[in-house]
Amino acid sequence: MADMNLLETFENPHPNRDYVIQHVAPEFTSVCPKTGQPDFGTIEIEYVADKLCVELKSLKFYLQAFRNEGAFYEDLVNRILDDLVKVLSPRQMTVVGEFTPRGGMHSTITADYAAS
Amino acid sequence: MADMNLLETFENPHPNRDYVIQHVAPEFTSVCPKTGQPDFGTIEIEYVADKLCVELKSLKFYLQAFRNEGAFYEDLVNRILDDLVKVLSPRQMTVVGEFTPRGGMHSTITADYAAS
Amino acid sequence: MADMNLLETFENPHPNRDYVIQHVAPEFTSVCPKTGQPDFGTIEIEYVADKLCVELKSLKFYLQAFRNEGAFYEDLVNRILDDLVKVLSPRQMTVVGEFTPRGGMHSTITADYAAS
Amino acid sequence: MADMNLLETFENPHPNRDYVIQHVAPEFTSVCPKTGQPDFGTIEIEYVADKLCVELKSLKFYLQAFRNEGAFYEDLVNRILDDLVKVLSPRQMTVVGEFTPRGGMHSTITADYAAS
Amino acid sequence: MADMNLLETFENPHPNRDYVIQHVAPEFTSVCPKTGQPDFGTIEIEYVADKLCVELKSLKFYLQAFRNEGAFYEDLVNRILDDLVKVLSPRQMTVVGEFTPRGGMHSTITADYAAS
Amino acid sequence: MADMNLLETFENPHPNRDYVIQHVAPEFTSVCPKTGQPDFGTIEIEYVADKLCVELKSLKFYLQAFRNEGAFYEDLVNRILDDLVKVLSPRQMTVVGEFTPRGGMHSTITADYAAS
Amino acid sequence: MADMNLLETFENPHPNRDYVIQHVAPEFTSVCPKTGQPDFGTIEIEYVADKLCVELKSLKFYLQAFRNEGAFYEDLVNRILDDLVKVLSPRQMTVVGEFTPRGGMHSTITADYAAS
Amino acid sequence: MADMNLLETFENPHPNRDYVIQHVAPEFTSVCPKTGQPDFGTIEIEYVADKLCVELKSLKFYLQAFRNEGAFYEDLVNRILDDLVKVLSPRQMTVVGEFTPRGGMHSTITADYAAS
Amino acid sequence: MADMNLLETFENPHPNRDYVIQHVAPEFTSVCPKTGQPDFGTIEIEYVADKLCVELKSLKFYLQAFRNEGAFYEDLVNRILDDLVKVLSPRQMTVVGEFTPRGGMHSTITADYAAS
Amino acid sequence: MADMNLLETFENPHPNRDYVIQHVAPEFTSVCPKTGQPDFGTIEIEYVADKLCVELKSLKFYLQAFRNEGAFYEDLVNRILDDLVKVLSPRQMTVVGEFTPRGGMHSTITADYAAS
Repeated sequence: MADMNLLETFENPHPNRDYVIQHVAPEFTSVCPKTGQPDFGTIEIEYVADKLCVELKSLKFYLQAFRNEGAFYEDLVNRILDDLVKVLSPRQMTVVGEFTPRGGMHSTITADYAAS
Repeated sequence: MADMNLLETFENPHPNRDYVIQHVAPEFTSVCPKTGQPDFGTIEIEYVADKLCVELKSLKFYLQAFRNEGAFYEDLVNRILDDLVKVLSPRQMTVVGEFTPRGGMHSTITADYAAS
Repeated sequence: MADMNLLETFENPHPNRDYVIQHVAPEFTSVCPKTGQPDFGTIEIEYVADKLCVELKSLKFYLQAFRNEGAFYEDLVNRILDDLVKVLSPRQMTVVGEFTPRGGMHSTITADYAAS
Repeated sequence: MADMNLLETFENPHPNRDYVIQHVAPEFTSVCPKTGQPDFGTIEIEYVADKLCVELKSLKFYLQAFRNEGAFYEDLVNRILDDLVKVLSPRQMTVVGEFTPRGGMHSTITADYAAS
Repeated sequence: MADMNLLETFENPHPNRDYVIQHVAPEFTSVCPKTGQPDFGTIEIEYVADKLCVELKSLKFYLQAFRNEGAFYEDLVNRILDDLVKVLSPRQMTVVGEFTPRGGMHSTITADYAAS
Repeated sequence: MADMNLLETFENPHPNRDYVIQHVAPEFTSVCPKTGQPDFGTIEIEYVADKLCVELKSLKFYLQAFRNEGAFYEDLVNRILDDLVKVLSPRQMTVVGEFTPRGGMHSTITADYAAS
Repeated sequence: MADMNLLETFENPHPNRDYVIQHVAPEFTSVCPKTGQPDFGTIEIEYVADKLCVELKSLKFYLQAFRNEGAFYEDLVNRILDDLVKVLSPRQMTVVGEFTPRGGMHSTITADYAAS
Repeated sequence: MADMNLLETFENPHPNRDYVIQHVAPEFTSVCPKTGQPDFGTIEIEYVADKLCVELKSLKFYLQAFRNEGAFYEDLVNRILDDLVKVLSPRQMTVVGEFTPRGGMHSTITADYAAS
Repeated sequence: MADMNLLETFENPHPNRDYVIQHVAPEFTSVCPKTGQPDFGTIEIEYVADKLCVELKSLKFYLQAFRNEGAFYEDLVNRILDDLVKVLSPRQMTVVGEFTPRGGMHSTITADYAAS
Repeated sequence: MADMNLLETFENPHPNRDYVIQHVAPEFTSVCPKTGQPDFGTIEIEYVADKLCVELKSLKFYLQAFRNEGAFYEDLVNRILDDLVKVLSPRQMTVVGEFTPRGGMHSTITADYAAS
């Protein structure tokens, strides 16, 4: 099951500079909680690190853990954002989920976080 | 006939965050009220939900209901926006209709709503 | 209802030469006989005329007549081919139907005719 | 000859909302006043209607009327903008002309109008 | 588990003609038997039916059943071909599997069958 | 009016070799003989010269001469082929006309000639 | 040799409006002053005319005059901007040079001018 | 150093069928033996296995071993083909190397093998 | 001036195999002998070497030597083929010249050679 | 080893104007410090020069020096920015590294500098 404890971090090597890190995972899949059918999409994560960066391999395992889990699009993207914000405390973060067509329609969900 | 009663909603799972939901329906068809000929296009709906989100399957049925109905491009897009705003009371919403060429010209109509 | 009597013809202006005529109709729509849901696709018709060519406007009306009719992909393409062969008696003809995704899969059906 | 009297209008069905109407005509052709050679291009018209919208078929005839008329690129785009502004009194309008290469160079002219 | 008993058929509506049916499933996923990591790819099935056609929804369920099953690329494609040939006894069939990059390399496997 | 006397030729500089010359004219326009509306398309001419090559500028003028002339697609392409064959006596020639959509359908006509 | 005296002008036909004129010349070539090897690129010129517009044919000849002249990328773009500003006194101008790869790297230089 | 001993094999799971296996490695790099500069390209390997298939990870290591080795394009592709043929004894094999531009030109080398 | 003495060769490292070498030079330019205006295009050379391969740098210099030379498209391509055949005595060779639009038309010339 | 002493400069030929210089190097490769596997990507450098510009050939050698060096993505991009800022003291600079997929995910790092 998807769990933010799967996420590992490393120290931001350039904490004095606000720079942008983007990871794009085009092989995301989860399960529709209504129909039990698989959903497919791309998850884009873009952030300005503060003290911590997310380790790539652990991010892969975290996203893979959604494979057999039921979740709505709107919920998935917000939940991934919440988990990453809790683990990384970034200065800024955006998570975008672009999902493949269902019933002839495709959907994109975009959620932002900014440290106050 | 297209009727906003076809639209069903579910509770916004993350109402504390302003995040963007986009649904793109490339299989839209209606009928030209002047010539009786079918029109084809793509409808893009993008919104920031307040308390309610539109349920995808009901949105599909709502858009399909235009299939044999006569309506001008300018009217269609504004009417879809009006219906969705009434049903969802979103914080913000944009509806775009991109229609395939007629007489060698293609047309795009874009209408916005922002809660005051 | 789709009916080959909708198809009109004109005399092939260059019957002494085997040349290829292709018409592509990307705005084809019919109805799934199982679910009642609309199907969308592109119909490509390519032929070598013998004595008759199909008149474009009548071809448009013929294809539009499938709009509210239920038919399976495999049947649709073979039926369009049969109708056009009966009306035109071409030297050769190919009909291709490329349909948009349903359940995450898209389908293409290709049927040929050659005068014996 | 191109003449703004060819342009017909209909009443804006949603005058209380500022929404954007775009028509793209990729089959524009006129004649170079210097060489007598045909010019080809795409005319894009984007506007926010006030009381009137331009009727599509009349717009097509208006643009077709440039077919055998000599005019420079810079003049064409400004003249189309002036004609449409006079006929529609829009809240805002942009006309873009993208012309195909002549002498290895292609040109784009963009002119805006905003009601004061 | 993937099982050819999931595949349902319907009678070929035009058995007198050799015509080509193609289904493309871009949302295929299985599991690498070595690493336990998910694999992703597109499965293309193209065939000339004899007496039977494969029912689309059952094909979707058959392909989805590989979701949590371990199999090598070379094996997967040949196994899908074998299952479909057993169930459909087609006149001809090709199965292609195009897999997304692993270790910087992407792979495509193509297997054919022809009734003797 | 389009007239094969507009076509000028020059001597094939390499008559001992069968090589292929292709000219593509994407700015072709004529007039629909039924509706009086302009048609637009691309004309591709490909040939193996025997003793004569067509001079490019004269080919441009020849094709431009269709600008205000009414002709059906099927006729246009065969007529251009006939004119070029008469003037050049090529070893082989193909003329293709790809026309922009009318009534939602686009058409391509392909005609070949081979010296016997 | 490239010389701003090659540039000819004509009177801006719509001086009361700030509108944008863009010319794109994808067939630019000059010579590397270090290696003597030819350089290739695209020059884009975008400006808001004041009293004068640049005549297209003269612009072509002006740009062609760099053909056998040695100049660095950084210098070329600034020099073209300086020449055009001197001749046209535009309200605003941007010149962009996009050059093809040398040593596996490609370069783009962008320089702006605004009348004070 | 590149060495065919790096290549590992596994038994062809479907030796009774002639099917095609393709691996594409877009991250190939070697060194130009003349200039010492790095070369970059894509290596495509397509084969019909007999008794043995190449193991993907070992293929990656084999190709990576060219990283700091000097070799001409023409030689590289033939050498990779020779090595793979020796190790796999395939029924058929094609190796293609597509290299990025050097001095404004890009090169592709294609070599085939068929068991006699 | 373009001169086949500029072409240097090296020994074919794999003369026992018929393999294909392709070089693509997208930065070709010459001068129109009629108008004195520059022409631009891409030259593709594909051959099966016998005893000799063409050295890449010398090929670049040979093609660059056309820079200020007047030649018709039809002549250019045949002449490049003749020069390369004389210098390399290949088993097979094809030269293709694809030229950018002049007067709205673009041209491609393709010439082949096969050792008898 | 990558070393900023490899970077050479030349005097900015137009220091009075703020103009933008962009160099794009799509053939970047380094080594993953964790796995020892090669990484591949594109480095984009965009800056406004003050007194100095970077010499292109030296930039190529500087970037090539990362070829056998281990470095994380986040570190690489910041380090290249730091080196270039030290050597050039630009008015503004952005360095972007776009890396090819690892484990199904691709990453982009973007770092900016502005002179205070």
